[in-house]
Amino acid sequence: MSSLTRESLTQFADQHRQAFEDHLRTLVEIPSISSAPDRKDDCRRVAEAGADLIRRYGGQAEVLDTAGHPLCHGHFFHSEAAPTVTIYNHLDVQPANEPEWRTEPFKLLIEDGRYRGRGTTDDKGPALTALLGAVAAHRAGVPINIKFLWETEEEIGSPNFKAGLEQHQAKLTTDTVVVSDTIWITRGKPSTPAGLRGLQGFTISLETAAHDLHSGLVGGAARNPLTELAWLIGKMVKGRTGEVKIPGFYEQVAPLKKSEAKDFKKSGFSVETFRKDHELTTIRTNNPEKIMKAIWARPTLEVHGIVGGYTGPGIKSAVPARAEAKLSCRLVPNMSAEETLELITRFVHARIPDAVIKPESALAPYKGRGDGPYAEAIKDAYEFGFGERPAFTREGGSIGAVPTMEQVLGAEVYFLGLSLPEHGYHAPNENYDWEQASGGIPAFAHYFEQIAAVERSR
Amino acid sequence: MSSLTRESLTQFADQHRQAFEDHLRTLVEIPSISSAPDRKDDCRRVAEAGADLIRRYGGQAEVLDTAGHPLCHGHFFHSEAAPTVTIYNHLDVQPANEPEWRTEPFKLLIEDGRYRGRGTTDDKGPALTALLGAVAAHRAGVPINIKFLWETEEEIGSPNFKAGLEQHQAKLTTDTVVVSDTIWITRGKPSTPAGLRGLQGFTISLETAAHDLHSGLVGGAARNPLTELAWLIGKMVKGRTGEVKIPGFYEQVAPLKKSEAKDFKKSGFSVETFRKDHELTTIRTNNPEKIMKAIWARPTLEVHGIVGGYTGPGIKSAVPARAEAKLSCRLVPNMSAEETLELITRFVHARIPDAVIKPESALAPYKGRGDGPYAEAIKDAYEFGFGERPAFTREGGSIGAVPTMEQVLGAEVYFLGLSLPEHGYHAPNENYDWEQASGGIPAFAHYFEQIAAVERSR
Repeated sequence: MSSLTRESLTQFADQHRQAFEDHLRTLVEIPSISSAPDRKDDCRRVAEAGADLIRRYGGQAEVLDTAGHPLCHGHFFHSEAAPTVTIYNHLDVQPANEPEWRTEPFKLLIEDGRYRGRGTTDDKGPALTALLGAVAAHRAGVPINIKFLWETEEEIGSPNFKAGLEQHQAKLTTDTVVVSDTIWITRGKPSTPAGLRGLQGFTISLETAAHDLHSGLVGGAARNPLTELAWLIGKMVKGRTGEVKIPGFYEQVAPLKKSEAKDFKKSGFSVETFRKDHELTTIRTNNPEKIMKAIWARPTLEVHGIVGGYTGPGIKSAVPARAEAKLSCRLVPNMSAEETLELITRFVHARIPDAVIKPESALAPYKGRGDGPYAEAIKDAYEFGFGERPAFTREGGSIGAVPTMEQVLGAEVYFLGLSLPEHGYHAPNENYDWEQASGGIPAFAHYFEQIAAVERSR
Repeated sequence: MSSLTRESLTQFADQHRQAFEDHLRTLVEIPSISSAPDRKDDCRRVAEAGADLIRRYGGQAEVLDTAGHPLCHGHFFHSEAAPTVTIYNHLDVQPANEPEWRTEPFKLLIEDGRYRGRGTTDDKGPALTALLGAVAAHRAGVPINIKFLWETEEEIGSPNFKAGLEQHQAKLTTDTVVVSDTIWITRGKPSTPAGLRGLQGFTISLETAAHDLHSGLVGGAARNPLTELAWLIGKMVKGRTGEVKIPGFYEQVAPLKKSEAKDFKKSGFSVETFRKDHELTTIRTNNPEKIMKAIWARPTLEVHGIVGGYTGPGIKSAVPARAEAKLSCRLVPNMSAEETLELITRFVHARIPDAVIKPESALAPYKGRGDGPYAEAIKDAYEFGFGERPAFTREGGSIGAVPTMEQVLGAEVYFLGLSLPEHGYHAPNENYDWEQASGGIPAFAHYFEQIAAVERSR
């Protein structure tokens, strides 16, 4: 049955380039910012637009309600006897209010095979790439049922995803899941994570007066909540190195295996590329192994914002009445978000008893697999699409949906990501490109064929 | 010549209450926020309105240009032979954007002898009180020349005041200066400072990337400027106590004399009143002597704002590209603003070499006098106006104009302030009241009479 040669798939991709770009424009120009309350309708619209696309290629599709933003679910059915694979993507996006945007973020701009706009690479472009790969496999009669699960709450930590999966479980049965929402280390060298970091967000706030005060009148006697929170942060984490000083914080961290460290080294990671891709002007270390370990295999405590007092030009010498620090920890296997938050809460209250800690989104870290037939299918798919076998690394970011799917759907989760560091996940001037899409379509088509073969051989 | 009995002055004040309120409305309803670039015209308008008022009572007055906002200068001339006293006030105000304002800040609201609005107590109300005291003395033929020096750049640290005095020096000759811009410890118990704290403002900023980054992608390896500045602040100052940990910071602090500490105790300071007046819900210590020392006789390092990263609702897990901390030190005699800034700069650069320190306004601390004939005249004036001799304390705030006037005009500076803690200097819902104005008018009139007598006896 192998009409799915590399050549025929290249031809298929080229023939569908215009359609891919039209579909990407449709999705990108819906500003589906899941964190913005006034974009609620756009999250539904993007799910409906996704369902329309699946239907246009002959699939069944529907928008499934949850307590929050909806899910888009689609299906290319082959037969009852065939195995089922589910492709997970998300159609919601980050806000795009950074002043550095050089073009309108919610207007697709195409220049020389590069697609610019919020959501192009995270994750609308990869979703459409996987869709076209599925269309190719389905039309070629590959004996597999392909389901699509497109979330619209990923960027806010998937708060209703678990309940949504449970509610619609009957429709969502699957043998395995493949997620396409991860980033290679460098162009031309595929890599795929065998683990994800988790996340525990939280705020710490402190109020000491009814209103801001004149530092000449009370300064010295009045508590200053900004000073206290800054001092507290200094006790929690070393500024330059980022080393967390909270006792027990690193206790549950799974040590990096020798084989994993070896795979990291083969990943194509380069300090220069890392620095350039992220436009870092300075970095904590220039040792590549230390950087890879820091971003993939070690937890963090990060300060995202400190609210309070005066923030206009120059200074205003008032003592602020209240302050709030916005923080999060990236977590690694085998840390628990809940236990980490407990450790932090104890640490904070021992030092500032009246500080108020409010938990924000929590995502468990995920420990994946780098071997077995499904992992081999991923490796084959990348080689088929891009001419290179991938390295198994880790992903420093968090996809809360991953541990949830493994748990609720009872299926192993693998990753077939297509994004590049220079695409700028969560950054201004986000982009995706045809080179990744035109390799990704054959890679996905081949992947479906491999999975069909794995299941047949069981 | 003593037609200036307490009774006649009470009558004079009562007869001029309506005029006082009309004048206060005129001045308060000009939003002369010296720090706001778009209020430049209002600073000139308020100086002109001040000059109009002085002229209305028969004085000469003019608006003197400086490189910044202008000065209002007025004169009630008696004779060449008579001594000259200069009354210093300022007609510019703090911004009024605090959400806690219950009324329109630039609309005078009168309720039961209380005047509410930005600038009522700091310093437009006291300026008008002194003016009416001068009118009473001048009309009674007290042999003294009374000059008015009303600044409109006090709230931004008097950046052009020194050059302005030097430029117009010929018009400004004076034998002594009295400043009415200070605050009693408690209603019914006058107090006057024998010293002021100075101020050295500065910002510390750090930039580590071209734009904010995804903490999943770079977190752990990327430097976080908010974390580094918070950690740095924690090294500079203890959160709960405010103790500054920069070596040498306290070295030049003049120790508090026993006689000064004794005067502090007699000042009427009460922890409960202090807490209530400033609406503090918590405080560093409940020991009154420690509080007085902390706010009057010890320097501080205060955090006024930390800019950078995400400040909206909840959290956004980005690593900020840049951050700026806004800080200032209140200084006490015999500290030097310049040397303090040097100490801090060395301390910061030893820890974060690429942090950028930008100096903001600097004001020298001021060591005044609590004895001698001028100090006695102040004491007599308060007793005459309010029935109580004042305590000599210190002022925790800074009036940059004070050391400048002593230096440029070669005249000793004393304080005859009328504001109360509950009036809310620099705070929302600022107010002043007729009780203080109606005692202040006789106090000032009596003060002019006393000074005339001091100078005659020389």
